[in-house]
Amino acid sequence: MQNEVENMTRWLKYSHMYRRGVAGSKVGRTHNLTESVQGNYHYTIGPYSDGVMEINPGDRVVVETRDAFDGLISSESDSPSKLLNMPFLNPQNGPIIVNGAEKGDVLAVYIESMKTRGENPTGTSCMIPEFGALTGTAYTAMLNEPLPEKVRRVPLDEKYIYWSERNTLDYRPHIGTLSVSPEIDSINALTPDQHGGNMDLPDMGPGSITYLPIRSPGARLFIGDAHASQGDGEVCGTAVEYPSITTIRVDLIKNWNITWPLFENEEMIMAIGSARPLEDATRIAYRELIRWMVSDYDYDQWDAYMMLSVCGKVRLGNFVDPKYTVGAGVIKQIIER
Amino acid sequence: MQNEVENMTRWLKYSHMYRRGVAGSKVGRTHNLTESVQGNYHYTIGPYSDGVMEINPGDRVVVETRDAFDGLISSESDSPSKLLNMPFLNPQNGPIIVNGAEKGDVLAVYIESMKTRGENPTGTSCMIPEFGALTGTAYTAMLNEPLPEKVRRVPLDEKYIYWSERNTLDYRPHIGTLSVSPEIDSINALTPDQHGGNMDLPDMGPGSITYLPIRSPGARLFIGDAHASQGDGEVCGTAVEYPSITTIRVDLIKNWNITWPLFENEEMIMAIGSARPLEDATRIAYRELIRWMVSDYDYDQWDAYMMLSVCGKVRLGNFVDPKYTVGAGVIKQIIER
Amino acid sequence: MQNEVENMTRWLKYSHMYRRGVAGSKVGRTHNLTESVQGNYHYTIGPYSDGVMEINPGDRVVVETRDAFDGLISSESDSPSKLLNMPFLNPQNGPIIVNGAEKGDVLAVYIESMKTRGENPTGTSCMIPEFGALTGTAYTAMLNEPLPEKVRRVPLDEKYIYWSERNTLDYRPHIGTLSVSPEIDSINALTPDQHGGNMDLPDMGPGSITYLPIRSPGARLFIGDAHASQGDGEVCGTAVEYPSITTIRVDLIKNWNITWPLFENEEMIMAIGSARPLEDATRIAYRELIRWMVSDYDYDQWDAYMMLSVCGKVRLGNFVDPKYTVGAGVIKQIIER
Amino acid sequence: MQNEVENMTRWLKYSHMYRRGVAGSKVGRTHNLTESVQGNYHYTIGPYSDGVMEINPGDRVVVETRDAFDGLISSESDSPSKLLNMPFLNPQNGPIIVNGAEKGDVLAVYIESMKTRGENPTGTSCMIPEFGALTGTAYTAMLNEPLPEKVRRVPLDEKYIYWSERNTLDYRPHIGTLSVSPEIDSINALTPDQHGGNMDLPDMGPGSITYLPIRSPGARLFIGDAHASQGDGEVCGTAVEYPSITTIRVDLIKNWNITWPLFENEEMIMAIGSARPLEDATRIAYRELIRWMVSDYDYDQWDAYMMLSVCGKVRLGNFVDPKYTVGAGVIKQIIER
Repeated sequence: MQNEVENMTRWLKYSHMYRRGVAGSKVGRTHNLTESVQGNYHYTIGPYSDGVMEINPGDRVVVETRDAFDGLISSESDSPSKLLNMPFLNPQNGPIIVNGAEKGDVLAVYIESMKTRGENPTGTSCMIPEFGALTGTAYTAMLNEPLPEKVRRVPLDEKYIYWSERNTLDYRPHIGTLSVSPEIDSINALTPDQHGGNMDLPDMGPGSITYLPIRSPGARLFIGDAHASQGDGEVCGTAVEYPSITTIRVDLIKNWNITWPLFENEEMIMAIGSARPLEDATRIAYRELIRWMVSDYDYDQWDAYMMLSVCGKVRLGNFVDPKYTVGAGVIKQIIER
Repeated sequence: MQNEVENMTRWLKYSHMYRRGVAGSKVGRTHNLTESVQGNYHYTIGPYSDGVMEINPGDRVVVETRDAFDGLISSESDSPSKLLNMPFLNPQNGPIIVNGAEKGDVLAVYIESMKTRGENPTGTSCMIPEFGALTGTAYTAMLNEPLPEKVRRVPLDEKYIYWSERNTLDYRPHIGTLSVSPEIDSINALTPDQHGGNMDLPDMGPGSITYLPIRSPGARLFIGDAHASQGDGEVCGTAVEYPSITTIRVDLIKNWNITWPLFENEEMIMAIGSARPLEDATRIAYRELIRWMVSDYDYDQWDAYMMLSVCGKVRLGNFVDPKYTVGAGVIKQIIER
Repeated sequence: MQNEVENMTRWLKYSHMYRRGVAGSKVGRTHNLTESVQGNYHYTIGPYSDGVMEINPGDRVVVETRDAFDGLISSESDSPSKLLNMPFLNPQNGPIIVNGAEKGDVLAVYIESMKTRGENPTGTSCMIPEFGALTGTAYTAMLNEPLPEKVRRVPLDEKYIYWSERNTLDYRPHIGTLSVSPEIDSINALTPDQHGGNMDLPDMGPGSITYLPIRSPGARLFIGDAHASQGDGEVCGTAVEYPSITTIRVDLIKNWNITWPLFENEEMIMAIGSARPLEDATRIAYRELIRWMVSDYDYDQWDAYMMLSVCGKVRLGNFVDPKYTVGAGVIKQIIER
Repeated sequence: MQNEVENMTRWLKYSHMYRRGVAGSKVGRTHNLTESVQGNYHYTIGPYSDGVMEINPGDRVVVETRDAFDGLISSESDSPSKLLNMPFLNPQNGPIIVNGAEKGDVLAVYIESMKTRGENPTGTSCMIPEFGALTGTAYTAMLNEPLPEKVRRVPLDEKYIYWSERNTLDYRPHIGTLSVSPEIDSINALTPDQHGGNMDLPDMGPGSITYLPIRSPGARLFIGDAHASQGDGEVCGTAVEYPSITTIRVDLIKNWNITWPLFENEEMIMAIGSARPLEDATRIAYRELIRWMVSDYDYDQWDAYMMLSVCGKVRLGNFVDPKYTVGAGVIKQIIER
């Protein structure tokens, strides 16, 4: 088991986080960001709230996240439209203040593990009126009657999600929302953008590192929205939303100029764009990936562009949030020497 | 002259503002929101800043607006990319606190007049790298070289804009950015949305009323971004930006449930949507207009939809900002009995 | 009356058609393209059908157009979804072969007049399931139940449309679909593109000239889809569709290299783009307008771009067809010396 | 080796093609569609060309495809913009007439193998002015200078692509363009839509079956545009384009009502949508997948929608063609009983 973990994380020592971070491979203190330490959760991500804790680069934080519905939906007979109250959705832990972080730095967030919380862990999926990709919404305004409301409450453990009598799905946890604070704006927890936010990228699970461009002192890290499994695009608007214990390690990278979130796991590097329409999210992701290949992997710009046209990988996060999220990646084996 | 003004504003007594406002046709005190009263201008529109003044419904405010470049561009040889510093763009006056305003109310803003400021009034238009509709931008990411930077400084008075030796254009002033505060978010002054924001709608000039859905106590009115003239869509990204003296009258309407900005002038009523892609902005605008015709003009929903398909009017605000803005309107003569 | 017509058309002698056309101001023979001469109407616009007549530049054609439903909907109790049979919609007259027309030339189509046909002229408007801007469609796929079907049959004459007991609308006729043939493709009559097609631009009525880029021998002119009135965007999917007698004059312009349709009336010149999303249609229109100002009005490219940002006009044709159509224009008084 | 092939194709007997096809598992005659049998290649896909051969359901066809540039680019110093001549791009073999095929049927195309052609097989990748995702194009019109032209000529065999001194990529062949004819339209070979067309989906390689909705007598199968490898989205506009020997088996399925292409390989089923903007392509794909799960896998519509939100897979074909292509899929193991 120990060996397995070591094997799983052997790639880490070659990661940008280990090679460039202030803490590097050194693991610092462990902090517990429990519900009671958190107190009020946040529904907007910005510079105007008080930090819940201060940590140093290299520190580990064990976070008790709430589900995206703030736990308000507890039965399949509940009505999401009655219980949910915009804009008080998608509660976020944080902000965690990272000592030494300044505008222009990069925050590295390595997800160590994601566990279920409490007894009888249960996930929740919903069809919410005027929300989702195959229905008119507040921004894609239609006159059609909304789709019916539906709630699924599904038992799960750290191996499986017991979706229905017919279908058992694998537990594939990831964090839906991961952010640093914008400089002067405060952005609702439903919207992804350059600061991270509600990206809903299924790859952002244990064993992944996300790099976020810091815009305010202390970085102000927000985290929430754990998914036990999510399909590409999150088509009906929700994943298997569940309260989690998510353990992260955080580091700080100086002298790295990035504009959008970047991402790394054992297999690939990826740049992440969020925009509407969906092609614009994809454009951002590919352009940032090209820039990354030029700056850190010694590729010529045009060679990177043409080669990604031949071997690039695209991952659709969501196409249901106020901005859509796409990751554009390339296999590390191809680009590392 | 007096008669002319009276004629011009005779329609006002039938406006939603006069018929439904707390102050109705009564004009209250006049406040001066000069540069020095304003102090710091704002680049983000939200609930986290202190009010600059309190007013009552019916009051008039004379506002000294800065140009969208904060006055930093003063010569045709200036470089916008060197002088402008994101996100500190499009400075806003405010927030003006409106006594009695509560979440769920509507703020009516009537623009009385827009005058030039200072001697030798001059407007500024720019081509800014990676900004505008016919170039790759931060959100429509391209690898092309950016367009050249260009600055035009154009003399103007309250009749004409002296664009070039060849072309003199009419002075057609309007306010580019008009907002109430979101409930918990703070949105940069470049982005329009449900709260109003950077709509850049050429109709929003003297003699128009904009209705904004209040989401926070006191409404928190922000205003700025005067344009001496703007083309539909603001294609290169900027209008004739100028510092103005803009006089508004403000009223408060209770018991009117609106979601997006609505608009009225002598000729038409209009609903305003902001979104990407542009068809979604147009969808919002038409849906809100239909809802307005149903709620206040006694139309059947389907009759309104079909009739607008036959006589609706569309006005493009901008298709260069982070969200695009469209107004969908109908001639009052058609729908008023 | 004669004087009035002369006044109305005085601008014609300064038009691109008169100044550059092979026929210039000379009016040639008048041809009658009646229903019986037409025989089969066309539902696809391409090079694979036989010409219905040959004309010379300068000739006039009096065309009996059918309504967009091919006359199949004759009562308000009819069901469009039962009577209409994709892709056999929007019947087109033509192709009219223009002698001397070759790939690379431009076809000028001046609309002289549009009259009603038959006794008791009647227009038809419909809500068709999964068609229109405020409903899920074949291309914007939703799971919502479709909107109800609705048919309006409205009496009209050459002054008014008797829409309802409450509303009488002005007769503002225009041609919805006007095309030359693509080189090797054949495009259904519902889709606009570079060849013209189903642009649904309300300005394309009597007193307007449309310039189309010829791509096949004889130009192969198709025309149909008369509207007695249409709102900007044609939001529910249909205008007041009616069978018309449309009289056009046609000329041929050599040595004019255009890619998209251009347009001219007494007041303005306009370039027309068709694409999805709507911002791309607008981009095309503005870029082609800038190119036109550079090539024929002696503007510097950047000056044209910046000036249109300050005084350009945008007209929304449709945002319901398989491609959306936008016209970007500028007032002639501004740009003509 | 024989066993391996049998293992690889064991799933076929459970495929929709084998279970529902007229020929089922029976393999018929083998036809050779060589360059000389083909004669003229086609650049538009429609009902107006003569069939090159007739086959029966179950027959195999060995097709000599040309590369997407018609072989015109043979050196890295060639200029694509000078050699390529719109709309004569992306040459297609066919149309192959399938006996018994009628409008309303489904054509199943199983790709058996894709081999290189000739000695010294070489692939071609290009950057073509105003083509690709990260540059202004004919439809996303910009004023920026176009990107530089670039040509890569890369040796390849049936294992590897020798991209550069630094990078060797796997040979992952697939067919870029696969179509039946529309009913009355003829669509250029660059555009995907309901008939199939230029989908550029990297999964459409050996061992896959594509199901196409037949709209004209004989189905009229067109095929071309082999890629030795393509990245998701084909970001610069081209893949490793090469002339191939592609062997397909074709069957005919009666009584299966589909609107868009469907797809199947050993691992998953997928529905394919093509539209702009990219979210609309994704919407189509997911809606058609849901419909398929309802009609053939006994899912309730809402359960399918919610479950795909939790485990659906999205594959980006291209976002560079006149319409963009997306596949939405689900793992067979999950939905098959």
